[in-house]
Amino acid sequence: MDLWYTEKHSDNVGISLRIKQSLYSGRSDYQQLDIVETLDYGRMMLLDGLVMVTERDEFVYHEMIAHPALFTHPAPQKVLVIGGGDGGSIREIVRHPEVELAVLCEIDALVIEKAIEFLPSMATAIDGTHPKVQVQVADGLAYIKEHPASFDLILVDSTDPIGPAVGLFEESFYQLVHSALKVDGIMVAQSESPFYHAEIQKSMFANLRKAFPIVEMYQAFVPTYPSGLWSFAFASKQYQPLADFAAARAVERSFPTRYYNPNLHRGAFMLPTFARDNIAP
Amino acid sequence: MDLWYTEKHSDNVGISLRIKQSLYSGRSDYQQLDIVETLDYGRMMLLDGLVMVTERDEFVYHEMIAHPALFTHPAPQKVLVIGGGDGGSIREIVRHPEVELAVLCEIDALVIEKAIEFLPSMATAIDGTHPKVQVQVADGLAYIKEHPASFDLILVDSTDPIGPAVGLFEESFYQLVHSALKVDGIMVAQSESPFYHAEIQKSMFANLRKAFPIVEMYQAFVPTYPSGLWSFAFASKQYQPLADFAAARAVERSFPTRYYNPNLHRGAFMLPTFARDNIAP
Repeated sequence: MDLWYTEKHSDNVGISLRIKQSLYSGRSDYQQLDIVETLDYGRMMLLDGLVMVTERDEFVYHEMIAHPALFTHPAPQKVLVIGGGDGGSIREIVRHPEVELAVLCEIDALVIEKAIEFLPSMATAIDGTHPKVQVQVADGLAYIKEHPASFDLILVDSTDPIGPAVGLFEESFYQLVHSALKVDGIMVAQSESPFYHAEIQKSMFANLRKAFPIVEMYQAFVPTYPSGLWSFAFASKQYQPLADFAAARAVERSFPTRYYNPNLHRGAFMLPTFARDNIAP
Repeated sequence: MDLWYTEKHSDNVGISLRIKQSLYSGRSDYQQLDIVETLDYGRMMLLDGLVMVTERDEFVYHEMIAHPALFTHPAPQKVLVIGGGDGGSIREIVRHPEVELAVLCEIDALVIEKAIEFLPSMATAIDGTHPKVQVQVADGLAYIKEHPASFDLILVDSTDPIGPAVGLFEESFYQLVHSALKVDGIMVAQSESPFYHAEIQKSMFANLRKAFPIVEMYQAFVPTYPSGLWSFAFASKQYQPLADFAAARAVERSFPTRYYNPNLHRGAFMLPTFARDNIAP
C-alpha cells in the first residue's frame, strides 16, 4: 500500500511524508496520539494530527530550545520543562553538568509512556532511571503555582495554541512563570513560525513583555514544521542572550551537537526583517 | 476541481500546494516551463516540474542572492547574472546606485518571455526599458569566456545540477567565472539545501576552493524549497563577507527589504553544525 501522511499548514499548503507503517494510535483525555514510521524521517509522533517530532529532525528543535538559555545563565541548576513529553528537551538539558535537577511536567501521561516505548532516542532520560530527572504528570499551570521562586530556567515545550496548550500563550501564564523563576531566571518558549503565524507571535510577544523586562526572539530551521522556519521566545529577568552568553563555556564544553554551536547561538538572534517586524513593540 | 501540485523532495517527502488554475504550460529547447496560480503563494513558476519561484516567498531568495555580495564589494559597478531569467535577482541588483551595468545571461528565452508576461513583479527590470540592464539570451559558459576580467560580481542563479545547469557546478566553470571577474571580484551561487544535498554541497565547495581563495557558505530560509533551508556559496578573490562588509553603507542605504538587513547579513554566515560539516575542507 502506498501510504502518505499530509499535514496541512493551511487549507492550501501541506507537507506529505510517505509512511511505512502505523506503530500506535490512541486517544488520551487530552488529545489524539499517533506514532508512525516514515520512510525518510524515521519515526514520527503526531498530536491531534500535527507533527510534533520526527527522529530525523528533532535534534534541531531540542538543541535549540535548550542550549541558548543554558549557555546564557551562569549557573543553571534547576530546570523545569512544561510539556515536552517526548523527552527530547530533557535529554539536552542533562548534558549540562551544572544542572542538578531537571523536572518534566507533562499533562498527558500517554505521551510519556509512548515516547519511552517508541522513541527511545528522545526519551532516554525520562524513563525513571536518570538520577537528575523528575517526571511529573501534571498541569503546568498548577505545578508552577505551587513552586514559587524555584527554577533557574523554565522551558515551555508546548503544542500550538489550540487544544490543551492554549493557556500557555496568555499573559497570566507568563506572570506565573515569572513567579516560579528565581530572581535571575530565564524562560524559553517555542513561538511558532514567523512566516505563517505573525498574529500569534504579535500577541505572544506583547504578553511576554508585560511579564518580563528582557524579551527576544530567535530562530531555527525545522524541515517538518510549517514553512521550515521556527522560532523561540527568550524571556529573562536579568540576563541578555548575547551580552551574557557564556561563549567560553560553550566552546570549552563543546559536547557533540548537530545544530547548535557558539557561533550559531549569535546568528540565531539575527532575524529576517519580516520576523523582526512581527514582534516590533 | 480540487487541484493540488506536489513537488517531491525525495521519493518519500514532498510539499503540496493547492492550485487555482494553470496559466501557461510549454516546452522550450531546454526544459518544460509551467506557470500556475496557487491559492496561498501567488503565481508559481516551475521548470521541469520543480518550483523555481513563487510570488509569496521569492523575496527571500532574490534579496539573499544579491545583497550580501553587493554590500561587501566596495564598488559593484558591473554585475552579471547567469540564469535568473525570472528577473528577481536583477530587480534587487539595480536597487544599488553603484551599479552601472547589470547583465542578465539566460539560456532560455522562453523563461524571460513568460516571466515578463506572468510575473511582472519579478521581471520589472528585464523588460527592455531599464537603462542599466542588458538582457542576453546566451549560454553562460560561452558568455563568460568572451568577457575576461569584466565584472565586479557574478551571480549564478541556476536551477539544480540536473538538466541545463549541470555544468554550472563544475570546477572548469568556476575557473571561467574567476577569469571573467575583475581582480577583486566576487561570485555568489545558489548552493542547494544543506539538509537534503550534502553530497552536492561537498563536491561544489571543493570545486570552488580550487578556483577561489575565499569560499564561504551562507543560509536563507525559503519555505517552498526542499526542507525550507537553502544556501548560497560566496566565492571571492579579495573581500571577506564579514570583515569587508560595508555595514555603514547597508544601514545608511536601508532601502526597504523584507528579509535582508545588516544584522541578518552577519547571522546568515553563522551556520548550523551539520551544514558547516557538509563543506568542511
